[in-house]
Amino acid sequence: MYYTLEEVEMESWKILEGGLDNVSGFSSYGVHCGIKKGKNDLAAILSDTPAAAAGVFTQNRVSAAPVLVTREHLLKERKLQLVVANSGVANACTGERGIEDARKVADLAARYFKVDHRLVAVASTGVIGEFLPLTKIEKGIEELSQLLPVKKSSREATKAIMTTDTFPKERALSFSWEGKTVHLGGIAKGSGMIKPNLATMLSFIVTDLGIDALVLDQVLKEAVNQSFNRVTVDGDTSTNDMVLILANGKSGVEVKKSNDPVFSIFREALFWLTQELARDLARDGEGATKFVEIIVRGARTKEEAQKGAFTVAESPLVKTALFGEDPNWGRIMAALGRSGIEMIPDKVSLEVNGITLVEGGMKAKGVEREEAQEAMKKKELKIIVDLGIGEGEFEVWTCDLSLEYVRINSHYS
Amino acid sequence: MYYTLEEVEMESWKILEGGLDNVSGFSSYGVHCGIKKGKNDLAAILSDTPAAAAGVFTQNRVSAAPVLVTREHLLKERKLQLVVANSGVANACTGERGIEDARKVADLAARYFKVDHRLVAVASTGVIGEFLPLTKIEKGIEELSQLLPVKKSSREATKAIMTTDTFPKERALSFSWEGKTVHLGGIAKGSGMIKPNLATMLSFIVTDLGIDALVLDQVLKEAVNQSFNRVTVDGDTSTNDMVLILANGKSGVEVKKSNDPVFSIFREALFWLTQELARDLARDGEGATKFVEIIVRGARTKEEAQKGAFTVAESPLVKTALFGEDPNWGRIMAALGRSGIEMIPDKVSLEVNGITLVEGGMKAKGVEREEAQEAMKKKELKIIVDLGIGEGEFEVWTCDLSLEYVRINSHYS
Repeated sequence: MYYTLEEVEMESWKILEGGLDNVSGFSSYGVHCGIKKGKNDLAAILSDTPAAAAGVFTQNRVSAAPVLVTREHLLKERKLQLVVANSGVANACTGERGIEDARKVADLAARYFKVDHRLVAVASTGVIGEFLPLTKIEKGIEELSQLLPVKKSSREATKAIMTTDTFPKERALSFSWEGKTVHLGGIAKGSGMIKPNLATMLSFIVTDLGIDALVLDQVLKEAVNQSFNRVTVDGDTSTNDMVLILANGKSGVEVKKSNDPVFSIFREALFWLTQELARDLARDGEGATKFVEIIVRGARTKEEAQKGAFTVAESPLVKTALFGEDPNWGRIMAALGRSGIEMIPDKVSLEVNGITLVEGGMKAKGVEREEAQEAMKKKELKIIVDLGIGEGEFEVWTCDLSLEYVRINSHYS
Repeated sequence: MYYTLEEVEMESWKILEGGLDNVSGFSSYGVHCGIKKGKNDLAAILSDTPAAAAGVFTQNRVSAAPVLVTREHLLKERKLQLVVANSGVANACTGERGIEDARKVADLAARYFKVDHRLVAVASTGVIGEFLPLTKIEKGIEELSQLLPVKKSSREATKAIMTTDTFPKERALSFSWEGKTVHLGGIAKGSGMIKPNLATMLSFIVTDLGIDALVLDQVLKEAVNQSFNRVTVDGDTSTNDMVLILANGKSGVEVKKSNDPVFSIFREALFWLTQELARDLARDGEGATKFVEIIVRGARTKEEAQKGAFTVAESPLVKTALFGEDPNWGRIMAALGRSGIEMIPDKVSLEVNGITLVEGGMKAKGVEREEAQEAMKKKELKIIVDLGIGEGEFEVWTCDLSLEYVRINSHYS
């Protein structure tokens, strides 16, 4: 289900440098308004015209104020024209005042950018329990409104939504359809509190395709399920997660029905884009030194494969062994064993980057410790566990648990 | 439900120094047989006569060979006379040969100690996937059989079952009944892979009370549920967990029926003993710098309180904040929010060591950051979350996630 670059080339899509700047009729920028010290902390993404829009939001019972306000705006009109996102303060666990503050940010942005306030999405990421510094944010919004749409930089916008991310995450591609070119661009931020059903993650995707908002909603859900929802850094889910997509139709290509051939091309392009962003999130998990794909196959069902894969991916003992480049496969077996899924230990086999470490539930014969250790030294690890009792398969993306993860998270707020 | 020392004194129990040595008719010792470098790695616990016995074993689907063999022995006779436990090699994921090896250890011990092999329990803890070094173990068993029962040291036995434990865990107490004295003693080891339904934990408890094995089985299950099953270090459950209790009747006091008054005294004494050992496990969690009690109350049900408490206790973001002495209560709120239990954020309050940090789901008024930070600096933290929507309550014991945890676990095997 994961689209490799080779497959993408076969499909004759074109992978582009950068992120949102590629897409017609969209402009974005980021500024430093003073929430964080000396770093970009406020981003705006503007469409020249109202765009069909859809969103996927955190499943956390403790939803932050901007999530509530943006969901409300989106469900009313299914259109957005502007996204305003800040980092540094999450505006979560801030009660009624938090919701009023989020509305004020939308209203301020609507006023400065001269768009309907119901077409404004707001997003926040950062420390929970603090109120938004509205005066600083107003100053930042004013500045952004003077820059956009003339001056634009997807990179500056991406930098403004970063928290402990170590690199900006931008992806873009295009494809041709009947002589016209459709673009998709996306940005995302991680990088702790990352776990299925979203994460402390924000992702904003734009396209110049024309498409109905309800169709867009459906395909976004599908895309998120097989991309962001496969990622886990630490099993923690944030209060502020949000993936938004805006489609403004500027390419001149329009999806009329969901069985249009162009729709299936767009769908796969969106899958690719969200998968790349999601994998970047795992690569940049807090303190990550390795990107790890965990594939559980041969499970009784897909659901059991998923449960097993996530249990392995979130096991602190597995993750610290990965950090230590220690081929301690017993911890993977133990994690699977406690995951609650059906398994017959004697039927399990396990490989890391093509080296079989376990066969029939035991150490594979003829594999030397040195060889196993060598396999663990790669920056990207692919761990395949075959339970050998069914057809269920699931793949998740994660990273190791390093000293740096603890350092970052013991001194954050 | 937790028995404090004050309550214990009121009950006129006597808390004793040391562990197993207090109990009549039991002797134990530990030696270095060569599995680990220069440290005790083999322990034996001997009863002068066959003792009524009960056990609780890992729920992990991947159960180690000694777990399978000991369970088999125990269920046949419900009696044990000898426990032999090694550290260094877990004898897990070792297939048929592992089971044969575990049987050989029991047979060797039976021969050297001259007891029926069905009265021997075997236990192992250490690296998964390696075979037991039987020649070394035989040598160790021979040595132990020459020492016991004349020379005995519960401390040496305890040291022989330690892995990454930093201190030996021994507890003992006695109580009087009709002019006679009943003793209970226990030892335990942690200290990673600790999670309800047991852990990489072994605990061996002995008493000179006389009691039927089936009654003993029932009270042990109860005791484990409210002690070891409340502990979580990292959410990982081991393949080798085992709690055994042996009762040899040497005190001359006998429980005839489960409504005997002496039974309820014994039951509470066992609860206290297992709770103390369990809390020691959390205190000595790998790399732990803090012991943390997490109490969730006001949940819809006890089960939901339990689920919420464990989700908080196992959240890497919560645990790293505890390590950093960072009063980042938002992470506790976020963990509860994703735990899948019913909650109304606005009704939640939260306190740490008596300082209220959250009221009505928001930062409590009048609490300065300095005051909150001061509360976090204690070595023992008591975090109480009141969800404010029901009567469900549950308490779990855990520790923080430190740099040292990652150091230990990235270089173990």
